[in-house]
Amino acid sequence: MTIKDARTPASSSDASANGRADGSADGASAGAGGAAAGKSIGWHKGYVTGPEGSRSDLRVPVRQVHLTNGKAVTLYDTSGPYTDPNIDTDVRRGLAPLRENWIIARGDTEEYAGRPVRPEDDGIKHTSPRGGLRNLDAVFPGRPRQPRRGRAGQAVTQLAYARRGEITPEMEYVAIRENMAPEVVRDEIAAGRAVLPANVNHPEIEPMIIGKKFLVKVNANIGNSAVTSSIEEEVDKMTWATQWGADTVMDLSTGRNIHTTREWVLRNSPVPIGTVPLYQALEKVDGRAEELSWEIYKDTVIEQAEQGVDYMTVHAGVRLPFVPLTANRKTGIVSRGGSIMAAWCLAHHKESFLYEHFEELCEILAAYDVTYSLGDGLRPGSIADANDEAQFAELRTLGELNTIAKRHNVQTMIEGPGHVPMHKIKENIDLQQEICEEAPFYTLGPLTTDIAPAYDHITSGIGAAMIGWWGTAMLCYVTPKEHLGLPNRDDVKTGVITYKIAAHAADLAKGHPGAQDWDDALSDARFEFRWEDQFNLALDPVTAREFHDETLPAEPAKTAHFCSMCGPKFCSMKISQDIRREHGTTKTEIEEGMEQKSKEFAAAGNRVYLPLAD
Amino acid sequence: MTIKDARTPASSSDASANGRADGSADGASAGAGGAAAGKSIGWHKGYVTGPEGSRSDLRVPVRQVHLTNGKAVTLYDTSGPYTDPNIDTDVRRGLAPLRENWIIARGDTEEYAGRPVRPEDDGIKHTSPRGGLRNLDAVFPGRPRQPRRGRAGQAVTQLAYARRGEITPEMEYVAIRENMAPEVVRDEIAAGRAVLPANVNHPEIEPMIIGKKFLVKVNANIGNSAVTSSIEEEVDKMTWATQWGADTVMDLSTGRNIHTTREWVLRNSPVPIGTVPLYQALEKVDGRAEELSWEIYKDTVIEQAEQGVDYMTVHAGVRLPFVPLTANRKTGIVSRGGSIMAAWCLAHHKESFLYEHFEELCEILAAYDVTYSLGDGLRPGSIADANDEAQFAELRTLGELNTIAKRHNVQTMIEGPGHVPMHKIKENIDLQQEICEEAPFYTLGPLTTDIAPAYDHITSGIGAAMIGWWGTAMLCYVTPKEHLGLPNRDDVKTGVITYKIAAHAADLAKGHPGAQDWDDALSDARFEFRWEDQFNLALDPVTAREFHDETLPAEPAKTAHFCSMCGPKFCSMKISQDIRREHGTTKTEIEEGMEQKSKEFAAAGNRVYLPLAD
Repeated sequence: MTIKDARTPASSSDASANGRADGSADGASAGAGGAAAGKSIGWHKGYVTGPEGSRSDLRVPVRQVHLTNGKAVTLYDTSGPYTDPNIDTDVRRGLAPLRENWIIARGDTEEYAGRPVRPEDDGIKHTSPRGGLRNLDAVFPGRPRQPRRGRAGQAVTQLAYARRGEITPEMEYVAIRENMAPEVVRDEIAAGRAVLPANVNHPEIEPMIIGKKFLVKVNANIGNSAVTSSIEEEVDKMTWATQWGADTVMDLSTGRNIHTTREWVLRNSPVPIGTVPLYQALEKVDGRAEELSWEIYKDTVIEQAEQGVDYMTVHAGVRLPFVPLTANRKTGIVSRGGSIMAAWCLAHHKESFLYEHFEELCEILAAYDVTYSLGDGLRPGSIADANDEAQFAELRTLGELNTIAKRHNVQTMIEGPGHVPMHKIKENIDLQQEICEEAPFYTLGPLTTDIAPAYDHITSGIGAAMIGWWGTAMLCYVTPKEHLGLPNRDDVKTGVITYKIAAHAADLAKGHPGAQDWDDALSDARFEFRWEDQFNLALDPVTAREFHDETLPAEPAKTAHFCSMCGPKFCSMKISQDIRREHGTTKTEIEEGMEQKSKEFAAAGNRVYLPLAD
Repeated sequence: MTIKDARTPASSSDASANGRADGSADGASAGAGGAAAGKSIGWHKGYVTGPEGSRSDLRVPVRQVHLTNGKAVTLYDTSGPYTDPNIDTDVRRGLAPLRENWIIARGDTEEYAGRPVRPEDDGIKHTSPRGGLRNLDAVFPGRPRQPRRGRAGQAVTQLAYARRGEITPEMEYVAIRENMAPEVVRDEIAAGRAVLPANVNHPEIEPMIIGKKFLVKVNANIGNSAVTSSIEEEVDKMTWATQWGADTVMDLSTGRNIHTTREWVLRNSPVPIGTVPLYQALEKVDGRAEELSWEIYKDTVIEQAEQGVDYMTVHAGVRLPFVPLTANRKTGIVSRGGSIMAAWCLAHHKESFLYEHFEELCEILAAYDVTYSLGDGLRPGSIADANDEAQFAELRTLGELNTIAKRHNVQTMIEGPGHVPMHKIKENIDLQQEICEEAPFYTLGPLTTDIAPAYDHITSGIGAAMIGWWGTAMLCYVTPKEHLGLPNRDDVKTGVITYKIAAHAADLAKGHPGAQDWDDALSDARFEFRWEDQFNLALDPVTAREFHDETLPAEPAKTAHFCSMCGPKFCSMKISQDIRREHGTTKTEIEEGMEQKSKEFAAAGNRVYLPLAD
């Protein structure tokens, strides 16, 4: 196992001039409060506490960027304890269970023996010629734990608490994090317009919220497949993705060691983890979709809920009568979960077992506070198939299921497409909001054209920004490898950064309070030639600095009042500063002063550029 | 000089399995007609002729992609003769003057001695301690030529011809290229809604059109600055940019050798070349903005018009009374041309000489058919400054100037911002279209957030796609180096590809006839596991193939009916194909056949995945 190194990015990664390599941040000031210092050069990990009267055990992580003009900018931080030099993390022990006391204090859950872990949970069959885990020492060695679930008759979901008018510590935490009143957080959850994914078996997370009133969130997918990848890589991808700003991570593993990989990921993840239980269930029946059954699926959901999965994609909207609607599509069914369920329905000529057992599934999810992510199994896989009958038939079904889930106090979000040309995007979010009573929309892209494999982070980043502006609460990233292969570290980073851009652009367009502070701070730094501040405020400080240094590597160029675009002889920013300095900052001052100043300016030699020139 | 190699990309670049390295294409079939074969594996350069009755000397280049199912897809091609193996190009001779006969045949222009080239055209002063061209052998050696201009009293612009009802060979050429009727091309130009930039001194270009009724175009900027770069690099950047799909190129050189660099670029460019004459004029006064004068500017415009520059950015909208409007901006004036003019206005406390001499400038441009690109010198340089009083005051002035230009038969487009959050983008295009009587809008991005230096191709690609959808005719690319340094080859490619995505996404959203054919062809290939066809149809075939091979390098994986995402055990595409094959392709067939087939399917073993599995 070489996971440990991957988990300590501050020491193992490229050390920039400021001794850091990460750039995780999200678009708003995180509010006032006391901050405990981490590193002090360029930026440090800080913690914000609530206003007077808040719980004393709420310490919300932020990234504080220290500017050379003495000011500081506070940014949203998803990177977890790994970027705090005062916390000694150990990937074999897992993160500290931040929420454990809160969960226990509520007194509505109980520990129990739990479902025994079986070889087939990791894809190992008695009949398998290969057998055994790939790494025998891969079983997570961390602290012993028993799963926890709601006591009989107890509704233990954040939705249930919110509906009762309670503000949980988790809600208070996200209120500080989002710079919102706790009552707003509670009311949005109670109305089903936001979810706070927080399985009682995942106490390690730093709570976060997904809803259109809050900052737009980004999900990064990881997951080993049958073809390639390993546990080490997946855990590393998780910490890497959150370091750059992923708000949640979905573990979409499909090969062997699924159970074990997930355990490592969960115990070490500071963000909510999502899964598609159907993938593991399919492994348990050796890939034979028709051999799936409600019992196998249910067992898998319980297995994952006991481990602490925070939200699960459930393709219960792929109903038997919808399968024929896909027959004339350009690209048929492209959702893996969707096609598994379609194959099952066809093989048995029966209604989907997920649809038929949905109420029972709700009871299970409610017992652990697992959030539904109702999957769009019939999402379009090409521009030609966007917004067709199959897609919207399923969406209407998701609306029905959303109502049922809410009746069971299960938090619910709705997944969306896919491949959609720009002019058809708004219909998706408008219809989803109407049909699903404003439940959070969680979309993959959408990709706005099919012609650019290797650049689908961009084809989809365009759609993601737009649909985020129009109300989508979380954006599932797409990496440059989409359609072509499995993402590596660089692809994960590129995907996350692209989607942080889309999310922040959406926050700006929505007029999210405080979102523009970040842009303003960076633009001020740019105008005032504070190069170090520009780098430190950048979404990706490492690359910004590298790109600058490629053209002008010398250290003085970082304090120079010019850049490589125009060179020292003429700089438009410089001229604007001259205008401001010479002629005042208000319109009247300038008008009054202009004629007089123009004479002085001429007398002084009229040089609008620096003496460095030529 | 090592330009020649850079000019023969097919031989010098990475040879993929199909012996090609380029991916230039644009979103539509280019129509019917005879095609002369170039290469025959994967794709070849073809030429399309017009319908019955067309001129016989019209051969419009296209890229024809040959699919493994025997079909072919015809794509727009901007790469020029360089990708035609039957044409022996020589960078020292320049391209063949395709349009020369057409220009001569019109009989309304004359050759003349022209303005003598002076050392200061290349930034060389008698007083300069350095003196001399950087490369003495850099002077373009190609065929001797004299400049040409309209005979006295003759209106020699495409706008003048269109208004007279004439369909020029250039118009016919673009009609074939865009798969439109020549009358539509003529009428759009006549109405001022489209421009066909084609200086009578740039006969080498393959005519193209910029207007909202046509495919959205992409401009790439190149240009050596005072700090770095060389002639070789700039010519190479031009051919590299057009190879990947740039429809026009702006030469924004600001250092020495400006005149000579431009000559090489023009003589070798198959696409229209744009410039900002003010940059060179400023060099002539050694960077002292206040020493600029109408005479120096006019002389520079004539110099460049004689060389063959097809369109010129003119910042005549930066008027004296607007300068104070920028004083309280977050980032002042960020346009280089805008700040030069603002500095001049302030220094003299006089109205802009460009504004005051605009009619005279129109007469010069009309004599060569140089197209105006009326510059937005007061465009916002940050989210905070978007859509402010300064910006819109200038836009209203551009509306006035547009009317004057049209009176002189000068083709005109209008430049637009800049940094604009998503919710403020539409106002820009709507206002521009209203104020400027639907003259083509030509925008830089816009960048939808300021927080991501090193990723501004993406922050701006989002805005570019949206504003393209809403009617912008040409998108000026932004590279990853924006705000940080000068773009290298990789940056130019990334910028062009990103903007081709934005332009094509816009074509789709506008419902441009035929645009979706490309997406459909690629999606068909994807659904049918024709990997080679997916690569060949991709906007960037080289990277698409590389990414695929990174995960599954073996040759059989290119014919395999699965990919690395799901592996061989389960593939959603495969299941959809099974559904289609087993159950028919119409809804009725499927409904009838489903129950029967589900029995057979079960009897046959029910395996929905391939036997390659585990």
